Amino acid sequence: MEYSTSSLINSFQPKEKHTTLFNHQISARIRLATELDVPNLHKLVTQMAEYHGLSQIFTTTETSLYNNLFKSPNPPFHSPTALILEISPNPFPQTNHTTTTNFVPIIKNNYNFDNLEILDHELETYRSKFNGHGHDNSNNCNVYVAGHVLVYPSYNGFFEKPGLFLDQMFVRKCYRGMKFGKLLFSAVAMQAEKMGMGMVDWLVANWNEETINFYEKMGAHYIPEYRLCKLYGDQLQAFGKKSD
Amino acid sequence: MEYSTSSLINSFQPKEKHTTLFNHQISARIRLATELDVPNLHKLVTQMAEYHGLSQIFTTTETSLYNNLFKSPNPPFHSPTALILEISPNPFPQTNHTTTTNFVPIIKNNYNFDNLEILDHELETYRSKFNGHGHDNSNNCNVYVAGHVLVYPSYNGFFEKPGLFLDQMFVRKCYRGMKFGKLLFSAVAMQAEKMGMGMVDWLVANWNEETINFYEKMGAHYIPEYRLCKLYGDQLQAFGKKSD
Repeated sequence: MEYSTSSLINSFQPKEKHTTLFNHQISARIRLATELDVPNLHKLVTQMAEYHGLSQIFTTTETSLYNNLFKSPNPPFHSPTALILEISPNPFPQTNHTTTTNFVPIIKNNYNFDNLEILDHELETYRSKFNGHGHDNSNNCNVYVAGHVLVYPSYNGFFEKPGLFLDQMFVRKCYRGMKFGKLLFSAVAMQAEKMGMGMVDWLVANWNEETINFYEKMGAHYIPEYRLCKLYGDQLQAFGKKSD
Repeated sequence: MEYSTSSLINSFQPKEKHTTLFNHQISARIRLATELDVPNLHKLVTQMAEYHGLSQIFTTTETSLYNNLFKSPNPPFHSPTALILEISPNPFPQTNHTTTTNFVPIIKNNYNFDNLEILDHELETYRSKFNGHGHDNSNNCNVYVAGHVLVYPSYNGFFEKPGLFLDQMFVRKCYRGMKFGKLLFSAVAMQAEKMGMGMVDWLVANWNEETINFYEKMGAHYIPEYRLCKLYGDQLQAFGKKSD
């Protein structure tokens, strides 16, 4: 399966359509990503890189996402794994996914909002390709991708139990402030607990006070003295070739 | 295989013995850890936790190290993996380890130091149990464990290629200043390159200026705005049980 990175189509819709699509209710589902989600996932990680001002180091392609997320022989959460946040004006059906995967979708139907005015310029672009059985379903009416998380198994030599590293968590701008971030984070924490793991780790930018407060309120330890270092590109190649 | 955590034996030796053991030369070897290294590895991670003032969160046991490092069905570097730094007054034999593992030991024989005065209070405690064939060899003369690294495969959604996360790198105090840290780091960077990976990531404490300078000099990107967050213990359990 090959993906091209040139499939970014911005399909702008008239405002009226979006504001009426979610009238006073919105339903949400978090499920494991499938290969069909790769184009939408690539758009999400591209937008997230722009939001963090990291476009200049961004090298992810649809092909690399596919290779990194779906070609491992390990089951989900034992190698890099994506969860997809979908939203819909209609409630999601409760389905039994325990047969093939180790992640049971999280469904929150009919969130009520008195003044739900969502202007989603990219609604059609983000139409979900998933119909609950893993087949392509371009007629999957009124289900849209609103965000994602990327996680992979981690380990810390000071802790008895391994964990999950939360590499990315992203909710598209027009769906923020609706507690979907917390829902995504919950999905990861619950999964870590379910797998008998001891921790969830992630990084947060120090300028992102709102997010830091959100994390501290939920009981996370914010460890200000640790800084990220990264060796990549030419420098990694140069270092990898010598040993003196 | 069960390990107890109570095997920390401090075997103090008279100073004379240690200063003469490494006369003007010291040889070093970096190799994959085996199950026989677990007791020494546990002492190393315990000392590292003390050095970082993290003893109060330290929960690693010999059993957990064994489970996390040696019970995965994945080959080394595809799950948490430890490399061991050994030193000896005698040169290490060049051996062919390519048959069973994907890591070829790095050997640097006969470093010359004009004034090599090493006072290793724990020399006997850290005698290596490895004889090159994976068997216990308590008579393995004059080979001692001096440090370690812990790594695991990582992924970053902004990069095309996956990487290695360097969780721990530690050289025992009396062997610092001899470029063994750089040798250990090289081993990890070379392995990432060899496996076609795109990066090596790690965290550094912001008070550790010497280490930050060392990393920047070798071409690493120091990213000061990212902070580590960690959810574990009661808070993870509490979060893992709810989804609202």
